[in-house]
Amino acid sequence: MTTFDSAMRHAQSLDAQDPLASKRQEFSLPQGVIYLDGNSLGALPKSVASRMQQAITEEWGVGLIRSWNDAAWYPAPQRVGAQIAAMVGAKPHEVITCDSTTVNLFKVLCAAALAQPNRKTFICEEGNFPTDAYITESTAALYGKRILLAHQGNIEEVIAQAGGDLCAVALTHVHYKTGRMLDMARVTQLVQAQGGRMIWDLAHSAGVINVQLNAAKVDYAVGCGYKYLNGGPGAPAYVYVREDLHADLQQPLQGWHGHAVPFAFEQGYRPHATLDRLLVGTASQLSLIALEEALRVYAGLDMQAVRSKSKSLTQLFIELYDSHIAPFGLELASPRQASERGSQVSFTHAHGYPIMQALIARGVIGDFRAPDILRFGFAPLYVSHEDCVKAIQILQEILQSQSWQQDKYQARKAVT
Amino acid sequence: MTTFDSAMRHAQSLDAQDPLASKRQEFSLPQGVIYLDGNSLGALPKSVASRMQQAITEEWGVGLIRSWNDAAWYPAPQRVGAQIAAMVGAKPHEVITCDSTTVNLFKVLCAAALAQPNRKTFICEEGNFPTDAYITESTAALYGKRILLAHQGNIEEVIAQAGGDLCAVALTHVHYKTGRMLDMARVTQLVQAQGGRMIWDLAHSAGVINVQLNAAKVDYAVGCGYKYLNGGPGAPAYVYVREDLHADLQQPLQGWHGHAVPFAFEQGYRPHATLDRLLVGTASQLSLIALEEALRVYAGLDMQAVRSKSKSLTQLFIELYDSHIAPFGLELASPRQASERGSQVSFTHAHGYPIMQALIARGVIGDFRAPDILRFGFAPLYVSHEDCVKAIQILQEILQSQSWQQDKYQARKAVT
Repeated sequence: MTTFDSAMRHAQSLDAQDPLASKRQEFSLPQGVIYLDGNSLGALPKSVASRMQQAITEEWGVGLIRSWNDAAWYPAPQRVGAQIAAMVGAKPHEVITCDSTTVNLFKVLCAAALAQPNRKTFICEEGNFPTDAYITESTAALYGKRILLAHQGNIEEVIAQAGGDLCAVALTHVHYKTGRMLDMARVTQLVQAQGGRMIWDLAHSAGVINVQLNAAKVDYAVGCGYKYLNGGPGAPAYVYVREDLHADLQQPLQGWHGHAVPFAFEQGYRPHATLDRLLVGTASQLSLIALEEALRVYAGLDMQAVRSKSKSLTQLFIELYDSHIAPFGLELASPRQASERGSQVSFTHAHGYPIMQALIARGVIGDFRAPDILRFGFAPLYVSHEDCVKAIQILQEILQSQSWQQDKYQARKAVT
Repeated sequence: MTTFDSAMRHAQSLDAQDPLASKRQEFSLPQGVIYLDGNSLGALPKSVASRMQQAITEEWGVGLIRSWNDAAWYPAPQRVGAQIAAMVGAKPHEVITCDSTTVNLFKVLCAAALAQPNRKTFICEEGNFPTDAYITESTAALYGKRILLAHQGNIEEVIAQAGGDLCAVALTHVHYKTGRMLDMARVTQLVQAQGGRMIWDLAHSAGVINVQLNAAKVDYAVGCGYKYLNGGPGAPAYVYVREDLHADLQQPLQGWHGHAVPFAFEQGYRPHATLDRLLVGTASQLSLIALEEALRVYAGLDMQAVRSKSKSLTQLFIELYDSHIAPFGLELASPRQASERGSQVSFTHAHGYPIMQALIARGVIGDFRAPDILRFGFAPLYVSHEDCVKAIQILQEILQSQSWQQDKYQARKAVT
């Protein structure tokens, strides 16, 4: 007890100095829950519910079709894109919000393939989030590319090996299982030095890392709206393309919203002059409105401050793990070096699944990733240092009492 | 006046016998509006607002990540697909809800191309909704197909011309401008007689026509959720594949939700055994919930009764046009034969745009499609025969007074 008492006093002093502490009040968090899964589904920003009610009853219910103009539905993909651009170091017109991350990754992989038809190598990461591998595989098949697999430890060698045949490299900035973060600027530079195009998946970076796409001269990036951006379940995704690549940008998902003049209803496709050419069908407007409202919690925030708090939370969590959890056989799967770590701390344990179920039953919500990963995500806008201490204390109790061995925690269920 | 008085009495007697009349109360329609644009954005079913509030505050806000299981978010694409299947004459597992109509059309065009690699001809319709043409064009380029253009008048000859080289035909069942409906069973049979695959776009059919996909042995179909299905702006789309085609179904948008075991996080793609293989990224859950709730207004309805009312409304509208509008130079662009007409009546006029603007200003909401089409859609669940009379009366007043010539109605704006 004494140990946790002193840890709690330390955590409270860190929280007292936290410049982002007041942000927590902008979220609706259930009583009795410590939510460490914002890397899977972000918590609900309080203002979303009333904004959505207005959108449904007034904009849709009363405005009806007129709201595409009168309620500015039509320019929402660009407007929300600009909000996200401000968070990832891009220009407002370099990001557009649409479709899913996988579909957007398909668009930019195709764009890279079409831009460099004579270069035949894609590199993707073994152990990356599977959807990235699946879509890279199928795009490679469409355009006659071969795939070289790299892993986080040998990416630089594999890039060198591809040499002048390198067409594009698709990597995730922060690994979904381990939280390990790659050096965006360095890897991008190495890829471009071979004449290849660099694609980053920002699923686990945007909203917690001070991502600087322009400074790193990144070619393409994609990301999702429902993790740290708090856009709600299945929120629209986004795609970034550096502005000098817009003019020649081609991709096969040619839809009417990407046409130069969508409402002229021309029969032949002519791509829009801007990034609008990545739009396909009608925007998922209700979901876009939820995401737009959710992003207001980030308005005017310094992403460096967000990143600092993220480091502070994960650092404390690892320190508490060292003192209280390591003896029970959980292995740390995330980097100890803060500069190599996203906003996530993961452990491995052979019985990771029932341990996580027991934790969730006690109100500490992280998640499990097969075969043996316990993940904890730290959303700096609503997670406190005090939450870290409480979560570790509960985890220790579960491990000590072995309560995770109860039958009810052993049954396997799908989780996203 | 006498003429409209008698027309109104006739309309009221038709409304009095309308078995669907009570359905109107299930929609939230603004005062003073006659809404004839359900073919562009369906009206708001009243129960959607409270259902969405619950989904946001309870399922997202309190349930958080747990709601993927506990609130049955995960199986929503299949569940909503089954609701739609019941409306279009398909088996529950033959329809899945996901992505946009254009993206789904891409998937089934690719599926047809991959299934019949040696057949090199796609047929699409000149004058079809442009996005269908754009995506057919780009899919043809990916798989080395040529495109034969047909129009509604010569489709049968073009199918015969393609002969044994025919791979797939993509047509829209009800034309977006004229409302002309093709004979689904006959065209499907002709295409299949040549060994080709038939793809129908049901954007303007589902929810108003008694579509019978299984009876017509249709191979593939796609459609959108935001028109007559009333799912809200940019609602998710759906895709149908006949069950005997599921086992060999391939398409390049390989995402983790289409994997055989999504939560095993396998690195290699193995398609799911079912139509789930058409899923790509995480489902747009908030939009799916809105669509699912909206579809409840159709639960248990006989689609033949819906179709009968649709015919009755459009028939009356055309009769009223003949007596009151034709003299002002608007030409009827829709078929007079009810069996050849969807739930839409269109006129052409050189000044169609300002005339429609003047109508909208008087509360009669239809829409305009370049270059000269005035469209009126009749959603049988909330449009009455009385609405038809009132709309024609206001249109006649506008034409008689030439109020559409005012400057404020001449300015061009984009509309969807």
